[in-house]
Amino acid sequence: MSARGDIMEEFTVEVVSVGNELLTGRVVNTNASWLADRITRLGGLVKRVTAVGDDVEECSAALKEALSRKPKLLILTGGLGPTFDDRTLESLSKAVGLELEVNHEALRMVEEKYSGDLTPPRFKMARLPRGGKPLHNPVGTAPGCAVEADATTVIALPGVPSEMKAMFDLHVEPLIAGRARGAYTYRIIKVTGIEESSIAPIVDEVMKMGRGVYVKSHPKRDAGFYINVEVSSRAPTIEEAKRNVDEACRLLRELVAKAGAKAEDA
Amino acid sequence: MSARGDIMEEFTVEVVSVGNELLTGRVVNTNASWLADRITRLGGLVKRVTAVGDDVEECSAALKEALSRKPKLLILTGGLGPTFDDRTLESLSKAVGLELEVNHEALRMVEEKYSGDLTPPRFKMARLPRGGKPLHNPVGTAPGCAVEADATTVIALPGVPSEMKAMFDLHVEPLIAGRARGAYTYRIIKVTGIEESSIAPIVDEVMKMGRGVYVKSHPKRDAGFYINVEVSSRAPTIEEAKRNVDEACRLLRELVAKAGAKAEDA
Repeated sequence: MSARGDIMEEFTVEVVSVGNELLTGRVVNTNASWLADRITRLGGLVKRVTAVGDDVEECSAALKEALSRKPKLLILTGGLGPTFDDRTLESLSKAVGLELEVNHEALRMVEEKYSGDLTPPRFKMARLPRGGKPLHNPVGTAPGCAVEADATTVIALPGVPSEMKAMFDLHVEPLIAGRARGAYTYRIIKVTGIEESSIAPIVDEVMKMGRGVYVKSHPKRDAGFYINVEVSSRAPTIEEAKRNVDEACRLLRELVAKAGAKAEDA
Repeated sequence: MSARGDIMEEFTVEVVSVGNELLTGRVVNTNASWLADRITRLGGLVKRVTAVGDDVEECSAALKEALSRKPKLLILTGGLGPTFDDRTLESLSKAVGLELEVNHEALRMVEEKYSGDLTPPRFKMARLPRGGKPLHNPVGTAPGCAVEADATTVIALPGVPSEMKAMFDLHVEPLIAGRARGAYTYRIIKVTGIEESSIAPIVDEVMKMGRGVYVKSHPKRDAGFYINVEVSSRAPTIEEAKRNVDEACRLLRELVAKAGAKAEDA
């Protein structure tokens, strides 16, 4: 896929979201889309997003599978808290074969939050896979955790969005920014007066430009029928990605006009 | 996990969502949460949700992995349309080892939409894995597809939400309703004046009731700090599930009051 993989060695990322509420549909996985947006803008390439329940077997199986695909970074969200169902680090420990043990730096972080009053549920939050590095949580109480597993850096973040976001900024963004080398941008062109099977040859034509451009049509039926054409590019620099998108959009508009349809910025 | 698996033989479901836009974060995967909500209410048990890009290798690998876990139902969304990037059926064909071929019933469905004017992109939408059953799309143009693969019924639906939802109602709901035997319900109790590590023993106490009750605490920081406690139950009938949740909520409120905190319906 030219816009997603053939330009340079990619900084590949997988996201695993943990929580029954994602599998009953009560909660929409906006954590995953927030992360995917941020990672993509930083030049990383998200290859897969997986949601599993609060179950050690299910979660550790999903983690093992993700690790077998050797992404450079694996981000987990959810299940770091003090209650019985928070079992992400137990699952991670099982997946990477590193026993859970009390981490003294993590214990110090938790102690600080509770002025030293360490009940068992609080103590639980200080148990990390052996050799794991605790990550300061500036918003809530549970520390995050970074573990090196073969080809992959695994980062576990809480599921509470405000905590997850603050910790991403603090601990994950510098890591990606330092290692990812790509840039990504996209633009949406709204096309009316043509239907999707007739825009297909136009999309093919624009794709032939190559140069890391990817074109995808999204039919919309929310207010009459139209097609949002998403033109994106991954390139070594953001300037180049923008230039690629500009050129592709110019050609797209030209071909749409030739076909007697109308193109405008969405 | 008592609320998710030990009551009866479950009607297990996996969802695989296909589309680069889910991996760049441009689109939130609301299709998956809508499906999960509907499936759960119908008594099914969603075990995993996976999002992959428009890439035959990535998608067919994810499908093979999902099939190896032998869910009763595997729902795919996205990638059925006429453009080059719509490669879900090609991926499915590869995953189940059934070649893509023109399905005459599907061809008839597509022909009807275009009054017989079959351009190559339109023709493409009528190619299904051999032996697959085309599913009528009452909203858009691309037919869906049902394929039996060993222990699993695979259903491919379009990614356009209005098409996906209409086709779920038409083709998938009857299938689940006829085969799933469980019922599910939940209630959220908002608890203030206590923090999560102190509510942990209360959650444990309520969980000890057993009877298919599952209790999960979600710390919230949107308007001051509070905890949403989600009390859910899966049971053979909806009446029983509701009774379980009622009893668990009664005990929860009692224990929260004893701890000097406040519980109210969220």
